[in-house]
Amino acid sequence: MKLLYPTSLKLNVQSIEGFSASLHPYDVKQPIPDDLIDADVLVTWSNSADNLKDAAARMTKLRWIQSLAAGPNDVLNAGFDTSKVKVTTGSGLHNFTVAEHALGLLLNAARRFYEMRDYQLQSKWPSHLGGAQPDRPAGSFTSLRDARVLIWGYGNIAKTLTPHLVGLGATVRGVARRAGVRDGIEVFDESSLPKLLPETDALVMILPGSESTRHALNQERINLLPNHAWIVNVGRGTSVDEDALAHALEKGELGGAALDVFETEPLPESSRLWKTPNLVVSPHAAGGRPQGAEALIADNLRRFIAGQELQNSV
Amino acid sequence: MKLLYPTSLKLNVQSIEGFSASLHPYDVKQPIPDDLIDADVLVTWSNSADNLKDAAARMTKLRWIQSLAAGPNDVLNAGFDTSKVKVTTGSGLHNFTVAEHALGLLLNAARRFYEMRDYQLQSKWPSHLGGAQPDRPAGSFTSLRDARVLIWGYGNIAKTLTPHLVGLGATVRGVARRAGVRDGIEVFDESSLPKLLPETDALVMILPGSESTRHALNQERINLLPNHAWIVNVGRGTSVDEDALAHALEKGELGGAALDVFETEPLPESSRLWKTPNLVVSPHAAGGRPQGAEALIADNLRRFIAGQELQNSV
Repeated sequence: MKLLYPTSLKLNVQSIEGFSASLHPYDVKQPIPDDLIDADVLVTWSNSADNLKDAAARMTKLRWIQSLAAGPNDVLNAGFDTSKVKVTTGSGLHNFTVAEHALGLLLNAARRFYEMRDYQLQSKWPSHLGGAQPDRPAGSFTSLRDARVLIWGYGNIAKTLTPHLVGLGATVRGVARRAGVRDGIEVFDESSLPKLLPETDALVMILPGSESTRHALNQERINLLPNHAWIVNVGRGTSVDEDALAHALEKGELGGAALDVFETEPLPESSRLWKTPNLVVSPHAAGGRPQGAEALIADNLRRFIAGQELQNSV
Repeated sequence: MKLLYPTSLKLNVQSIEGFSASLHPYDVKQPIPDDLIDADVLVTWSNSADNLKDAAARMTKLRWIQSLAAGPNDVLNAGFDTSKVKVTTGSGLHNFTVAEHALGLLLNAARRFYEMRDYQLQSKWPSHLGGAQPDRPAGSFTSLRDARVLIWGYGNIAKTLTPHLVGLGATVRGVARRAGVRDGIEVFDESSLPKLLPETDALVMILPGSESTRHALNQERINLLPNHAWIVNVGRGTSVDEDALAHALEKGELGGAALDVFETEPLPESSRLWKTPNLVVSPHAAGGRPQGAEALIADNLRRFIAGQELQNSV
C-alpha cells in the first residue's frame, strides 16, 4: 500500500511509520509523478486545483483521501469518484488556532485596537479610547467580562473557544442543529434565534460552508441583534449576507463586525467591506496551520488497514 | 464623619452605607464646595490637578484619601501633608481590565491584527498573513500556544493574567523584587534577567512608575531578547527606554512592541514611536475603569472607623 503525504506542511513522518504502507512525499502544486500514480491513499493540504483535478483523472487505484482542511471543498469539487474514494477531513486540527484567532478578534472588537491603529497611522492620540472611562456601560461591548456571547455553529472549535471566554467572565450560549447541553453550555437550535439574538453582545459565527448555511445570518436576523452587538465570523463567508451586514454597519445599527472569511476570497479591491465602518478584515488567517495532523493520519491509517470506520468521514 | 465620593464614575453608593459617616458626592474637576471642606475622607478618581491642589490647601481636617487609581501619583504630588493624611490606592480594582487588555495586545501581536488593519486601509488583502501557513515556526511569535511569556512586575495584575495565558498553552514565568513561587508560577528576581530574557518570546511589563523602575528595560536588556520577541507594556511608560526600543525595532532586532503607556502622555504628535515599525500604540486604555471600588471603600471605611490598618496603604 502506498500513501502520499504533502510537502506543503512540516509533518513528522516518523509518527506515521509502522504500518504496512510505504510513505512518499509529493508536491501539491504539481501533477502526481507517474511512479506514485498507483497510490492507495492521498493526504492533501493546500493542493492546487490542477493537482487535484489531475489526481482525480489519473489516480485510478485511489481508495482514500485524508484532507487536512476542516472543510475539504477543494477535494470534493475536483472530480474524484466518491463511490470508490473515501474522503476524510482535518476537522479537529484547527480547533485551537481558530479559537485563538476568534478570541483575538473579540478582544480587538471590545478593546477597539483597530480604531487605535487608525489613529496611530495619523500620529493622533485617541483620547476617547483611553484614560478614565465608564466601566462596561449599558448598551456597549467593551469587555468580555459579563458579555453575552452567542456561538452559532457549536462544534469542536466552539468547545475549544468557550472555556477562554468563560474564564474572562463571559456568558456563553450556543446554536447548533441539535439543542442540548454540551460541556455545560446550553446549546439551542435555530428556532430559538429570535429569542437569542436580541440578548447577544457578541455573535461568533462558526458555520461550515454549504447550501443550507448560505446567508444564515441575513438581514432579518441582523436586525434582531442589539445596535451595539459585534459579529465575528471564523466559519465560512457564505454564511453571512455581506450586503445586509454592510448596510447595518453603515446605518450604525450594529457595533461592528470582525470577519476572517468572505463570500469571495481574496476580498476584491472593489469591495465596499474594506471601508465599511467598524468592520475588521482578517485575511482568512484563523486556521491554515493544522496541529496534530500526524496523530489523525496514523489513527485513520490504522483504521483503514483494519477495515474500520474512519474518523471525520465526509 | 464626612466622606466625599467622586461623581466621575458610577458608584453604587448603597454599598458604602451603614457606617457612622455621611456620604457626599463631589465634582472632581471643581474646587471642593465650602460646606464639604471639613470632610474627613476623600475618595478620588480622575481628579483635576487644580482640584487636588485646592483640596490639599483647604481641607485641613482631612485624614484619609482613598484613591481608586492603581498608582495615585496625582494625589501624592498635590501637596497633601502625608504625615496627617493617609493615602490608600485602588490597587486590585484594575487587575481584570489591565489583564484583559494585555491579553488582547498579546493576541494583536501574535495574530498581527495591526498589520492586517494597515492593509485593510489600503483595500489590500495581505496574502502573507492568511491562508496555508507554517505552524509556529522556530524564531517566531505567532501564537500563545507554547509561547514563553515573561511577566516583569509579577503582582496582582500578573496573577490575574497568567491563568488565561496558561489556558492558551503559554509557559509563564515572572520577575519581581522577591523570588518565589506564586500561584504555581516561578518568579525570579531581577538578577536572573540575563538568563530569562534570551528565553522569552513575549515580555509583558507591569512595573509601577518610580525612580527605581526608570528605564528598567534599557538597551542592554532589550538586546538580550530574541529578535522575534515582543514587548507589551501595561505598567508605566517610564520603565522602558523608548529610544532604545525604537532603535531596536527600526533595526529589526525585536519582533514588535505593543505599548499602552509612554514616557510622555498623550504621546506627542512629533514622537518617532507613531511610525516605528511593528510598534502598536494603545492610548493608556488598559485600566481607567475601576471594578469593585465600593467593596474596597466599604472595607477601608470600616477599618478606618475601627482604627485598624487600611488596605493598599502607600
